[in-house]
Amino acid sequence: MSNSRPPAVLLLSGGLDSTTLLAHAVREGFDVHALSFAYGQRHAHELAAARLVAERYGAVEHRVSHIDLGLFGGSALTDDTLTVPMDRDAADMSQGVPVTYVPARNTIFLAHALAYAEVVNASDIFIGVNSVDYSGYPDCRPQFIEAFQTMANLATRATTEEGCPLRIRAPLMSLSKAQIVRMGLELGVDYALTSSCYSPSKAGAACGHCDACTLRLRGFADAGVTDPASYIWGEEDQSAVSLSHRDPER
Amino acid sequence: MSNSRPPAVLLLSGGLDSTTLLAHAVREGFDVHALSFAYGQRHAHELAAARLVAERYGAVEHRVSHIDLGLFGGSALTDDTLTVPMDRDAADMSQGVPVTYVPARNTIFLAHALAYAEVVNASDIFIGVNSVDYSGYPDCRPQFIEAFQTMANLATRATTEEGCPLRIRAPLMSLSKAQIVRMGLELGVDYALTSSCYSPSKAGAACGHCDACTLRLRGFADAGVTDPASYIWGEEDQSAVSLSHRDPER
Repeated sequence: MSNSRPPAVLLLSGGLDSTTLLAHAVREGFDVHALSFAYGQRHAHELAAARLVAERYGAVEHRVSHIDLGLFGGSALTDDTLTVPMDRDAADMSQGVPVTYVPARNTIFLAHALAYAEVVNASDIFIGVNSVDYSGYPDCRPQFIEAFQTMANLATRATTEEGCPLRIRAPLMSLSKAQIVRMGLELGVDYALTSSCYSPSKAGAACGHCDACTLRLRGFADAGVTDPASYIWGEEDQSAVSLSHRDPER
Repeated sequence: MSNSRPPAVLLLSGGLDSTTLLAHAVREGFDVHALSFAYGQRHAHELAAARLVAERYGAVEHRVSHIDLGLFGGSALTDDTLTVPMDRDAADMSQGVPVTYVPARNTIFLAHALAYAEVVNASDIFIGVNSVDYSGYPDCRPQFIEAFQTMANLATRATTEEGCPLRIRAPLMSLSKAQIVRMGLELGVDYALTSSCYSPSKAGAACGHCDACTLRLRGFADAGVTDPASYIWGEEDQSAVSLSHRDPER
């Protein structure tokens, strides 16, 4: 094992954060086993992006787990009767937990990643959570990640019997969206391949107005670069809309 | 809310332990939302039992979540190329984690239960884990349950914003199988409806030889009652086989 690349499991949505994370983990020297979820999300287009970036950025394996979080509902991302909020500014977004919060989603994703890690003998699970730009999700905070790691180290055969402690790695935790964009560009990430939008067109173009698009566009604007992803209004208008989403207080 | 029955989520496999747990939770005064999993288990017959006992013992709702733990493999319960051990005695069973261990299964089940609890506003999740008869599963131990509870209280909108702390209740944790059987009989549980076997016949009759059957039969023998469940050898021979499975040292 000493000369080989250690295995790691990485939660990959195909969005900006997790794609940057993938490029980072591969650069760090891990053999990345990427895990995505078909969970009943309305933006299942992200799975096509996940497949693409897993291959492009060197995951040794990519698995898609089918689970049905729509069974429980409670989120605009899994319940078509709830509306995805549009055109919210930073002040709106900082008001409590948004309707796009999916109950216990990161707990569920990390739990599945823990099973995968045990099977491929990985001691590291990477997750692209970020508590700076979007603090409204409770399961994106450092204290949640730490508590999950503590629990995971009591949960499996690998962690309890085989002396294989598990680390949950969240290297994007305290970065701004602009810092993540710059990190990805340094790693050679082509963000045209990624999909962040909660409400894309059937062809997969981003709406440009949901919270995920708003944060993404602001991040690119703050980083001083143009988002190469495809938006529904076409590339020629993107910079204008991007600026309109920029938080004036930043 | 003060006069109504508080909601709880309960993990229901349809086996001896979780059915006893259901009857117990209903008797305790909870409106029980039962949750079962179609997870790729070879003994999917247990789901028919779960449906039956959910209705019989007063769950207000029963949902079945479809997840694919076979995607990761690593267990005789989800991988047909691995063999379910048969005719093991207590000494064999106490040797490490058995091949029927499913990687991170209880973490995954509890994570889904946490989502369900948040949606139905439940502060209690019941799980029928037991660390006495079968200590080989790391995710059946009290320290795992406590760590999961700590993590859960940092994970969701309900636990972090709505002042709704979550309790993981595992009242069977320190009971022997015989004590669980006696508890269930006092609660009026008809164990003929339950299914514990890892390797049942197509008609759902228990094999009588896997670890789950061995522990169950020993529990009934120790409680001094006959297991009314259907076994492949037919009812007339049951007591003889049951005795042959009894641990001579107990």
